Amino acid sequence: MDNATNTAHFNPSDRTTIKRLPKRGSYDRDTIHAILDEGLICHIGFVVEGQPFVIPTAYGRVDDCLYLHGSPASRMLKSLQTGIDICVTVTLLDGLVLARSAFHHSMNYRSVVIFGRAQLVTEFGQKEAALRAFTNHVIRDRWDELRPVKPQEINGTTVLALPLQEASAKIRTGPPKDDEVDYAQPIWAGVVPLRTVATEAIADDRVLPGVAMPDSVQCLSQQRFR
Amino acid sequence: MDNATNTAHFNPSDRTTIKRLPKRGSYDRDTIHAILDEGLICHIGFVVEGQPFVIPTAYGRVDDCLYLHGSPASRMLKSLQTGIDICVTVTLLDGLVLARSAFHHSMNYRSVVIFGRAQLVTEFGQKEAALRAFTNHVIRDRWDELRPVKPQEINGTTVLALPLQEASAKIRTGPPKDDEVDYAQPIWAGVVPLRTVATEAIADDRVLPGVAMPDSVQCLSQQRFR
Repeated sequence: MDNATNTAHFNPSDRTTIKRLPKRGSYDRDTIHAILDEGLICHIGFVVEGQPFVIPTAYGRVDDCLYLHGSPASRMLKSLQTGIDICVTVTLLDGLVLARSAFHHSMNYRSVVIFGRAQLVTEFGQKEAALRAFTNHVIRDRWDELRPVKPQEINGTTVLALPLQEASAKIRTGPPKDDEVDYAQPIWAGVVPLRTVATEAIADDRVLPGVAMPDSVQCLSQQRFR
Repeated sequence: MDNATNTAHFNPSDRTTIKRLPKRGSYDRDTIHAILDEGLICHIGFVVEGQPFVIPTAYGRVDDCLYLHGSPASRMLKSLQTGIDICVTVTLLDGLVLARSAFHHSMNYRSVVIFGRAQLVTEFGQKEAALRAFTNHVIRDRWDELRPVKPQEINGTTVLALPLQEASAKIRTGPPKDDEVDYAQPIWAGVVPLRTVATEAIADDRVLPGVAMPDSVQCLSQQRFR
């Protein structure tokens, strides 16, 4: 991983090489990191007795490591920590691509696919750093606003690390691509951009009097969701 | 499937029974349909030579059938149509749940997980109906605004049908659940709701003069993304 950290690109493996529409593919480290940092949930694919499962979950990133976490009772985490092959995908939907024909309708998106095997994190400091990454991934600087984490919470959370070694991005941008003859059709075509926005935060009923909403929450929509 | 259509619930199978936090689980048909209809992309999990893949893609629903489609050259569709076990997951992220401790941070979400095997659709009329469902899933009534689909487009698209037989939903709503002692902490806690919004549509450069944006596009944000 140290070696990989020093290069701008991940090396395409047989599994990560984009075969369909290769011009949409990217192995650029900054591109992949940016997609992972903008996303909030990943979909984890794993296999138990031949049956694939795809489960959505939160994650955090530190350098070239994606962290997953959950309850020690989680069946998924119990499976993952045996070192089975997994696939983790993060997808950001950027727009609806409306062409002149149904055939050329599409979507603009940015996605990252990671292959590898997750490793159980046992070292206390690394677990704490991972939990900090999860929390601050959801909302910047949140970790420092909270009551300090307790050792039993760290010990009571399963944390797995998935190295970003076999990772690729796939991106579609821009207008529809219609058949040349169809541009003569009197049909509106273009892109409807989509974005995820945070609406007004809702304090829970038991926030103590005088406790104001922190800046981190107030400016969430500006800082996070463009 | 006809039998299932007449009941309000899907029968939980061993695979779809929600084991972790079962109170979040649902097998209610209307709940599952509503999540599938609100989502725009699914993540398809499948296994090739022991390796799981998780690929985002568009979909359409007609009754108790989820349709997938793509190019006949797609490796994924070639694998799927051999009748392998797959898992299709649709996730809607509804909010960030900010607790008083890092440990109880969470997310509000609605997800559907479907297990089964996809079948190649070969009948021309059913393929056309599926393509109509894809298009109108992206934007209501779009199909009828377009130049008519051509037989060679239908023949040149691979369409797969996944029956909604083993399907379950998992839903989290509401405020954080903190440790009782932590409610005495002077820390703001609550929910930041998230939603996907459509911003102003961008016509492509080759829309003919005088062709107005149709109502379907103009009111997309009202009709689709609450």
